[in-house]
Amino acid sequence: MRISDIRATRIAFSDPPLRNSWGVHEPYALRTIVQVFTDDGIVGLGEAHGGAEIIEQRRLELLGLDPFQLSVLRQRAGGAYAVLETACLDIIGKAIGRPVCDLLGGKMRDEVPFSAYLFYKLDNAVNSGVEFADLSPSETMTPEAMLRQAMEFVQKFGFHALKLKGGVLPPHDEIESLQLMNDFFGEDVRLRIDPNAAWTVETSIKACAEMERRNLCMEYVEDPTPGQDGMAAVQATKRFPLATNMCVTRFDHLGDGYQKKAVKVVLVDHHAWGGLVACMQVARVCEGFGWGVSMHSNSHLGISLAAMTHLGAAIPNLDYACDSHYPWANVDVVNETFRFVDGKLRVSDAPGLGVSLDEDALARLAEVRIRYGREKRDDATEMRRFVPDWSPKLPRW
Amino acid sequence: MRISDIRATRIAFSDPPLRNSWGVHEPYALRTIVQVFTDDGIVGLGEAHGGAEIIEQRRLELLGLDPFQLSVLRQRAGGAYAVLETACLDIIGKAIGRPVCDLLGGKMRDEVPFSAYLFYKLDNAVNSGVEFADLSPSETMTPEAMLRQAMEFVQKFGFHALKLKGGVLPPHDEIESLQLMNDFFGEDVRLRIDPNAAWTVETSIKACAEMERRNLCMEYVEDPTPGQDGMAAVQATKRFPLATNMCVTRFDHLGDGYQKKAVKVVLVDHHAWGGLVACMQVARVCEGFGWGVSMHSNSHLGISLAAMTHLGAAIPNLDYACDSHYPWANVDVVNETFRFVDGKLRVSDAPGLGVSLDEDALARLAEVRIRYGREKRDDATEMRRFVPDWSPKLPRW
Repeated sequence: MRISDIRATRIAFSDPPLRNSWGVHEPYALRTIVQVFTDDGIVGLGEAHGGAEIIEQRRLELLGLDPFQLSVLRQRAGGAYAVLETACLDIIGKAIGRPVCDLLGGKMRDEVPFSAYLFYKLDNAVNSGVEFADLSPSETMTPEAMLRQAMEFVQKFGFHALKLKGGVLPPHDEIESLQLMNDFFGEDVRLRIDPNAAWTVETSIKACAEMERRNLCMEYVEDPTPGQDGMAAVQATKRFPLATNMCVTRFDHLGDGYQKKAVKVVLVDHHAWGGLVACMQVARVCEGFGWGVSMHSNSHLGISLAAMTHLGAAIPNLDYACDSHYPWANVDVVNETFRFVDGKLRVSDAPGLGVSLDEDALARLAEVRIRYGREKRDDATEMRRFVPDWSPKLPRW
Repeated sequence: MRISDIRATRIAFSDPPLRNSWGVHEPYALRTIVQVFTDDGIVGLGEAHGGAEIIEQRRLELLGLDPFQLSVLRQRAGGAYAVLETACLDIIGKAIGRPVCDLLGGKMRDEVPFSAYLFYKLDNAVNSGVEFADLSPSETMTPEAMLRQAMEFVQKFGFHALKLKGGVLPPHDEIESLQLMNDFFGEDVRLRIDPNAAWTVETSIKACAEMERRNLCMEYVEDPTPGQDGMAAVQATKRFPLATNMCVTRFDHLGDGYQKKAVKVVLVDHHAWGGLVACMQVARVCEGFGWGVSMHSNSHLGISLAAMTHLGAAIPNLDYACDSHYPWANVDVVNETFRFVDGKLRVSDAPGLGVSLDEDALARLAEVRIRYGREKRDDATEMRRFVPDWSPKLPRW
């Protein structure tokens, strides 16, 4: 079995004006959809934020490879390895009649829990002419509006964990948002906040103390402040476990993260850590370090979600529900679109990832990308449409 | 595909009176050979130093398992997981027509380099009536005798790396042994010494300084002294990379080992670290930590060697030749016995491990084990046959 062709298709899909500490999401999120073809007629799928350039540049080194030779692929594909690994695992699974989770050590759970990914946001109308998912369309910039968004997520999808993307309002207002959710949902949900490094160490310590004082039902606080040293200073107060997807994101960050006691939870992400197998490896390290494991998400569609679900099914020590932006998308490139029920996704037993490409949708979204024309996500520039002197200063508070 | 039966056979095979810091090898080495049978007629093989009791006790929890469900197997098999994982990977490989290395990320090299494993030893005649491998039969307790052993290993097997099991003679005599090898082989071989924690920190530092002064061609010094703190004190002198198979042997040792800068090289061992996949994970951690990877060995036969060879083929960052006791064995339980050529073994492309059980040999060695009667290796008690007041005091020098 050999790789006979690789196709990387740049697409864009509409993404609401979600706020974060850098600025605001542009009207379209950018993704690359990868199809890997084998000489015996199998097609493997992958999805990532980018990687198309690398695949195009290294095409000749990649064609002819046996999809099982993942370590060779890693050497040759560099930064596009993760998306190609996903496609190769999809191929292997299809070739041997096994779901991808069985290639990662097997299925530890039949359903994978996900969390609501709540965002402060502008009114969808700021991007007139763009159609968005039917979800929290109005401006959401107050604790009360955020509670309404949370209620909508819980009602529609049944999430039991709520992640608030923070670093947008002054810390007091974000804590007040958590307070309203805590008051409304009580022990039915667990809360997280991710200020994306928008808080100083001092603010982070004060905010954690305040969340503790209010007895909020926090699972963890994610990246309140930049860098391992800052995180360590906050973690030293021992109020809540600190989670990260910013200061421990590569294998060469793990040792220092442990040494500095910077975090207690790592959010794995197969796109960012270099593949699904790498995330299994990170999870094993977390087990050894006594750290928890959760999962990170960027804006994505169903191929990524399928891979995330298989990974979530395979990680023995998945201690927390996984993040996913998926509810914010109103389109997909797979025929088997996903629907969260009771905040969970059922793990597919079909061979490979268990999703197939909707070729028409792919073509449509590829055209959207061409029309949109942008090549790189830039939340700060987008933010200047609304706040001309915006600067993504971190930490801000 | 389900596990329909598991057979764990305790065997013993003759092992020469090899010396180490605890004492001397008993006349027979103890192993457990595991056969895992599936309902579709595949048999997977595993070999370990023990594990038979656990397998017998947990038999009912293990039968019926799908061999792909390795993480469930890990939970159920506990300390017998590694040997069962090897057997399951053998099964998976056979079921899908792939060598085991392809289940570990693929083959990074066609031949795996091994090192000579040199031992000070007593004369084989101390165990009269036992037949040993035709290798260094006489007493080897001087630098000159050790050089003769090294010459025999290099001549017969072509090794390019020589590992001296140290901690037996006073350090000066062991360094003198290395000196004679260095003088004889020059740059054709690289040297290692493994005092098995027999040296104090002070002695280790002095010995490393002396090896440096003599300009010996040392790849690394393995476990000169006990514990991560002691190793760190030696490593701080920065003379040679320190390697370990004693102070970083579990996932929860990795963080402290990094923090203390205790070592620069980890010897993986799929029997000890909890399987072949775990060793791939450790190797990835080593890559992230900036540590080298080598491979450890205990007395073993061909099933273990097959697994070690597939692992050695799959680890991208295998920085050193692998240890193996195999030349010291004069029997095997597999039909495809191994022969080192130019110090290397060719990686099998056959499905699974690429070895099949010699049922007659297994039956013979099971009888040897029954006649021998011992259940646990005890090099110190054996040593008292020759030195009645022997105490395995570590560190000794």
